[in-house]
Amino acid sequence: MSSEVHVKNIGLRGVTVADSAISFIDGEKGVLIYRGYRIEDLADNSSYMETVYLLLHGTLPTIEQEQRFVEKVKAARQVPDFVYQSMKQWPADAEPMDILQAVVPMLSMADEYGDTFERGININRSIGLIAKLPTITAAWHRIRNGLEPLPPDESLDHAANFLWMLQGKKPDAATARELDICLVLHADHTFNASTFAAREVVSTRASLYAGVAAGLGALSGSLHGGANTKVMKMLLDLEGEPDVEAWVKDRLAQGHKVMGFGHAIYKTGDPRAVYLKKMGQRLGEQTGQNWFTLSEQVERATLAEFAQKGKTTILPNVDFMSATVYYMMGIPLDLMTPVFAISRVAGWCSHIIEEQFADAQEKPALYRPKAQYVGEYCGLMGCEYSPPEKRT
Amino acid sequence: MSSEVHVKNIGLRGVTVADSAISFIDGEKGVLIYRGYRIEDLADNSSYMETVYLLLHGTLPTIEQEQRFVEKVKAARQVPDFVYQSMKQWPADAEPMDILQAVVPMLSMADEYGDTFERGININRSIGLIAKLPTITAAWHRIRNGLEPLPPDESLDHAANFLWMLQGKKPDAATARELDICLVLHADHTFNASTFAAREVVSTRASLYAGVAAGLGALSGSLHGGANTKVMKMLLDLEGEPDVEAWVKDRLAQGHKVMGFGHAIYKTGDPRAVYLKKMGQRLGEQTGQNWFTLSEQVERATLAEFAQKGKTTILPNVDFMSATVYYMMGIPLDLMTPVFAISRVAGWCSHIIEEQFADAQEKPALYRPKAQYVGEYCGLMGCEYSPPEKRT
Repeated sequence: MSSEVHVKNIGLRGVTVADSAISFIDGEKGVLIYRGYRIEDLADNSSYMETVYLLLHGTLPTIEQEQRFVEKVKAARQVPDFVYQSMKQWPADAEPMDILQAVVPMLSMADEYGDTFERGININRSIGLIAKLPTITAAWHRIRNGLEPLPPDESLDHAANFLWMLQGKKPDAATARELDICLVLHADHTFNASTFAAREVVSTRASLYAGVAAGLGALSGSLHGGANTKVMKMLLDLEGEPDVEAWVKDRLAQGHKVMGFGHAIYKTGDPRAVYLKKMGQRLGEQTGQNWFTLSEQVERATLAEFAQKGKTTILPNVDFMSATVYYMMGIPLDLMTPVFAISRVAGWCSHIIEEQFADAQEKPALYRPKAQYVGEYCGLMGCEYSPPEKRT
Repeated sequence: MSSEVHVKNIGLRGVTVADSAISFIDGEKGVLIYRGYRIEDLADNSSYMETVYLLLHGTLPTIEQEQRFVEKVKAARQVPDFVYQSMKQWPADAEPMDILQAVVPMLSMADEYGDTFERGININRSIGLIAKLPTITAAWHRIRNGLEPLPPDESLDHAANFLWMLQGKKPDAATARELDICLVLHADHTFNASTFAAREVVSTRASLYAGVAAGLGALSGSLHGGANTKVMKMLLDLEGEPDVEAWVKDRLAQGHKVMGFGHAIYKTGDPRAVYLKKMGQRLGEQTGQNWFTLSEQVERATLAEFAQKGKTTILPNVDFMSATVYYMMGIPLDLMTPVFAISRVAGWCSHIIEEQFADAQEKPALYRPKAQYVGEYCGLMGCEYSPPEKRT
């Protein structure tokens, strides 16, 4: 029997709720580790496909293992036709995150493994979802613009193929590699809100699909995956602003937020932001667009304001940096959160499988916390039920 | 700043994580209270519509308030045509819980309120979902059988209209009233796994739809909403078994479970089970089916076995009792969990709105717990990244 515990920390902040072997964060030192490896080493040397293998299987693949894995993912990119037929019925102004949330349960309907609940089969299901989220996102963008979805291109790797299906032209090598690194950087982040939601849902023995759909739902919130879009909207509003410094001062003075600053965990800087900043700079030079310069102005002005108030732990976060990177890659504003999902689905699936098959944990471990009742109370016999005509 | 807490209770069992004014359980005394009222008083005197009003608004409605509320729900029963057009594309053997999970985000696509985030509008959205889940469930059952969905009947109340849309004939008054009571009994249950998932998802400021979809996902698991179906499957397997007592003994001796016994919270009996048992008995008499008698035999034999082992807190639960009730009402096996959802959606929506608009809580309260890292670790500098050709 577990003992009674009363946690006062709102939103379970700072509360350790389970064991996990997938990723590790040291927020003070700005370190993010996947399965033992620092995110910097993976960004510099690895690829998204290799990182997905690492997250799902726990070790880096040999050359043969990676080849087989990449082939399996490529073979799973296509989406059943009934999904496209359905998507063509949907309102063109639908939120892309709603599209993904609707399609994932539809992929469950087409699942070839029935009720089978085994680690190996859930890895195959994961491969299916990791392979298909880019296809669905790109297809939706085509369909809402009255175009036919483009088929995946076997000759292109994961990131390049997504840009191809989305834009109908093959990206240059540097941009494709940078998007691949973005996917590496966003692939996992311990028990963030969407990952915790995914684990919570499958703790009832719900399917991997149900877990991923819940992850998508949580990610769609503006405090989570929706943040980079908000940053870009702010920058678009700011375009042509003659005095960025004054704008920032004014905004903060009025009690508003500058989007993309601060993190629940990182207090000395986000290790992922460093990479994204470099990409932003390069993409600015390549495209001739001034978004990176503008974001740097906002960053400088905001940090200066915070410094004056002694707030030195509120730094630009990953969303602040990814906004301009994705925008200059030609990713539409409302597809930025889906791109986050295209990466994070690897983390969700790894966590779902860990939740489902962890040997060390007591079973069943269904999440079922308690609430402190603070409502109407007339004792255990209940309040008197008055007939409708006597109510006012 | 919140302090660091390490909770060792697997699945957050026994851990109080937040305040809530919606429902209250005393597991030792077998008491369930919604907004101050005992479930028995609501089952005896109230209706599902009135109970939904109570859960959403916090007080029982006056006659006028209830009339307006019922009218609003009735007016919201119909589902956009693009939903039916999509459903007609889907595989006929799809799991109905996948259908509901796919359709809820599609209703978000058709939401008329845009980004508006207000309590009153989220109550309207809740009314929409509460009104539409029965329509979707019944429509799917018709579509998978090659039939056109039936339109809702304004002259029928919530439960009766569902049976009408599902079966194409109007239920007798006693059965309709009993299903309505079933909906009252299942409408809320504090921070159960699906409700907690719904709250967790919207804590990121994700939409009410995303929260309800996550609730559906969690409910679909066999440890949660899927339990009554498992009970009925067991009883169907048992049909014609000459010696139920021996079957139960044998099953328990082999280390298997008898489905539908035990509850994480109720240790002296589930107040909801009492009502369902009475309904089972009456429906057995009305229909001439022997499912209730069979379930009573299983109950007696199982309790006798448990008593011998001194296990006196493992009692038949609400799923054990609802299985035969729903079956005798003509609800197909795989629609039993959707019927649970048709009721519980009221609880999810009430909890979502409480999570979104609770004044007393610090904001933002996004759920973001921690995990204890137990994976590969080579220190903060990370494990050495070896090139692929050196891996084995």
